[in-house]
Amino acid sequence: MIITNSGRQFHLSLEKHMRLTSKFFFLLTLLLTISSVRSQNSQHDYQETANKIFDTALQEGQAYEMLKELCLDVGPRLSGSPEAAAAVEWGRQTMEKAGLTNVHLQALTVPHWVRGSVEEATILNSISVGSVPLTVCALGGSISTPTLGITAKIIEVNNFDQVRELGEKARGSIIFYNRPLDKTKRKTFSAYSGAVDQRSRGAIEAAKVGAVAVLVRSMTTREDDVPHTGAMNYTAGVPQIPAAAISTVDANFLSALVKKDSTVNVNLKLNCQSLPDAPSANVIGEITGTELPDEVVLLGGHLDSWDKGHGAHDDGAGCVQSIEAIRLLQSMGLKPKRTIRAVLFMNEENGLRGGKDYAQRVAANGPKHIAAIESDRGGFTPRGISIQAEPTTAAFKKVMGWAPLLSAINADHFESGGSGADISSLKKNGTLTMGLLVDSHRYFDYHHSDNDTFDKVNERELQLGAAGMAIIAYVLANEGLPAPEHN
Amino acid sequence: MIITNSGRQFHLSLEKHMRLTSKFFFLLTLLLTISSVRSQNSQHDYQETANKIFDTALQEGQAYEMLKELCLDVGPRLSGSPEAAAAVEWGRQTMEKAGLTNVHLQALTVPHWVRGSVEEATILNSISVGSVPLTVCALGGSISTPTLGITAKIIEVNNFDQVRELGEKARGSIIFYNRPLDKTKRKTFSAYSGAVDQRSRGAIEAAKVGAVAVLVRSMTTREDDVPHTGAMNYTAGVPQIPAAAISTVDANFLSALVKKDSTVNVNLKLNCQSLPDAPSANVIGEITGTELPDEVVLLGGHLDSWDKGHGAHDDGAGCVQSIEAIRLLQSMGLKPKRTIRAVLFMNEENGLRGGKDYAQRVAANGPKHIAAIESDRGGFTPRGISIQAEPTTAAFKKVMGWAPLLSAINADHFESGGSGADISSLKKNGTLTMGLLVDSHRYFDYHHSDNDTFDKVNERELQLGAAGMAIIAYVLANEGLPAPEHN
Repeated sequence: MIITNSGRQFHLSLEKHMRLTSKFFFLLTLLLTISSVRSQNSQHDYQETANKIFDTALQEGQAYEMLKELCLDVGPRLSGSPEAAAAVEWGRQTMEKAGLTNVHLQALTVPHWVRGSVEEATILNSISVGSVPLTVCALGGSISTPTLGITAKIIEVNNFDQVRELGEKARGSIIFYNRPLDKTKRKTFSAYSGAVDQRSRGAIEAAKVGAVAVLVRSMTTREDDVPHTGAMNYTAGVPQIPAAAISTVDANFLSALVKKDSTVNVNLKLNCQSLPDAPSANVIGEITGTELPDEVVLLGGHLDSWDKGHGAHDDGAGCVQSIEAIRLLQSMGLKPKRTIRAVLFMNEENGLRGGKDYAQRVAANGPKHIAAIESDRGGFTPRGISIQAEPTTAAFKKVMGWAPLLSAINADHFESGGSGADISSLKKNGTLTMGLLVDSHRYFDYHHSDNDTFDKVNERELQLGAAGMAIIAYVLANEGLPAPEHN
Repeated sequence: MIITNSGRQFHLSLEKHMRLTSKFFFLLTLLLTISSVRSQNSQHDYQETANKIFDTALQEGQAYEMLKELCLDVGPRLSGSPEAAAAVEWGRQTMEKAGLTNVHLQALTVPHWVRGSVEEATILNSISVGSVPLTVCALGGSISTPTLGITAKIIEVNNFDQVRELGEKARGSIIFYNRPLDKTKRKTFSAYSGAVDQRSRGAIEAAKVGAVAVLVRSMTTREDDVPHTGAMNYTAGVPQIPAAAISTVDANFLSALVKKDSTVNVNLKLNCQSLPDAPSANVIGEITGTELPDEVVLLGGHLDSWDKGHGAHDDGAGCVQSIEAIRLLQSMGLKPKRTIRAVLFMNEENGLRGGKDYAQRVAANGPKHIAAIESDRGGFTPRGISIQAEPTTAAFKKVMGWAPLLSAINADHFESGGSGADISSLKKNGTLTMGLLVDSHRYFDYHHSDNDTFDKVNERELQLGAAGMAIIAYVLANEGLPAPEHN
């Protein structure tokens, strides 16, 4: 507004201003109305689309049949094994059959560790119980023992401080890590995170004080007599010693025995070994974007598994859900503006070569990955999405706005958190990485053990997870994301 | 404020008013502050208490061990069976052991139907497949067939309209009800409700048009080769005909066969029968209220089960959760103002005698039951509470306000809906009836079949349900509820 000394001019000016303002507000109101209607329509359409995707997934889903093949025909598929090669070919054929386009392999080499045929631990001539076999299995990456095994005194510890305090007393012993998962954690993944250092670094810390082997309490929230395997590590400059998981039932038994009889000796025999790296591949397929085909929304899981059970929840489920999500969109005639790509990553369990290699290629040659969602928490009832971004970022807020699309199945719990091991390397390229959140109370009952079999997966739960991924991927592919701020 | 003609008086009056107002507002503010702090403290305390209950339930829970005993030592426990009597005694002893007070039985008589040793159905001399046995089981309450069975032509239908349309064509046939559960329903209970009329009234409607027996597609969302039993009914004036459930796999097979060969005959043999009513009991135990011991918050499940599997999810889970909820409060030294009572109801499955009898006694002699929560949707991850009241009622709103107490385990989905069959009769006494909501995608995989075994229950999920019941019962017992309006 211009204020002058002339009353008339002021009046005119004011009048003109009012007219202009009124016009401005009229236009603004019109614009806001249109945009609100558009946005409502768009939200409304997505809600309708989401409901149809759920219907289709529940009525005509194929993820469960895909998983059945992967679990029962291919079976467990540790990196470098013939079964892993079979899984790659299964993935390629399954993507083709599901109607994905641009199906191809991305070659890489992977570690090749084999369990061997011998994994035994025996309590020797205990004054209390005599000789008793224990339920154990080699941890992934462990070296073997001599053929006759290693016989040594058991020393039980709960953490690395206790190992360091042992000092010279530990020399020549077998260190027995027995800190249980914290049952009171509301999230089983938090319980796992709080205990898994024993498995991943236990052999290193024990070897530093002269121990000759380690037994590690299985990483499960249950008491069962099944050992749960998983990756262990060595480090340069520290002697490599054999490492095995012991079932939680036998960990409790051994612990009670050690308290009564401080001289318990165990003989541990493992004939696992690491072979030269083997050729393998990530498996990739897409639905091509109609408007921005060179921008990608990735859906993924990992194709390799441990050599126990069927690798059903970890992570056959994530693989078939990634394929199924695209198949659902395809079969319903939905055409996303950007490309949605399913990637079955190889070697998540013991090397992460597939995920790292994939991210390097994207960083070097593109295409631009605006977002990635991994399903690697088991094929259970979906609960929401974990977004690997600060809640203050525009991208985070935009994705949060889509949570209501999953409320029909009570999966609208979106939160800031981790994504998935395979896709986390994409984050530094500016990709918004996310993870499918599921009800995970049962996950560590099965994880990395003979318990992780096909029959533990429920078809509806698996399908709803695939549908949730399809919905969020579709909206992401159409709506895009604000440029990454702190992502 | 008093306005007079005198300026001074007005001034004084105003001054006094201001002082009074100021004093009033000061007092009001003080009051509001105190009450807000109190209410915050109270909310805060309940949140702290809730968290401790979750911790204790996860760390030191006993519901899983209780369920193991009920499933593996007592086993399935159909009303009137010796196992049901064993279950009553198990319930009494388990309540005593768990430290409940005023443990007692409430005698009643129950229907006594027995399956017998013969339940067979065979396709006879089909031109396509020859003679093929089908997987069937008698529906609960069915009469037997003659010893050599009933042989008749199969007519497939999907609903009662089709039965009525058949008219005379149905005479002498076996009506085969084959409408599947609607997979697209987000809630499996809705899918079940939409199909279960075939099982409950199918024999009546078929007999009206002269059919001689019925086969009913199993009430499950899965394709499996296990028949799922359940209650069926007869009605006065309509002939009673035998009724059996057929597995979904064999229902699909039979349906395909009937389409190819319209003259498929099946021989059905059942030797089930109804015996005279048998004595039984509800089992009751409490933690006595410190201030209003004669007002009761009820927690319940049903002790009887079908004679298949272990009755683990249906409803061993609800029974042990009801006991465990009180044991948790007791073991933590929490003393509710009102009495919290666990009731293990007898005969939910085929008569509801326990629930009806209990409500009649309460109506006649009290004590006043302000609220009741039943767990009878399986021992799965708790998701919230279903409140059997209109959302406009004060009681509904009050309970809704406690939902955040369960948000730490993502079980804060409280909604208006059904409660539980056993407690629904209490509603007319003015009791607010509620049901524990759980993740129920797997429920009808197991329901009423050999699949409903102990190993299908996860300890954490079961314990969290018990904890959720304990928390809401404790707050209800302390805070009470507004008088029922439309409850």
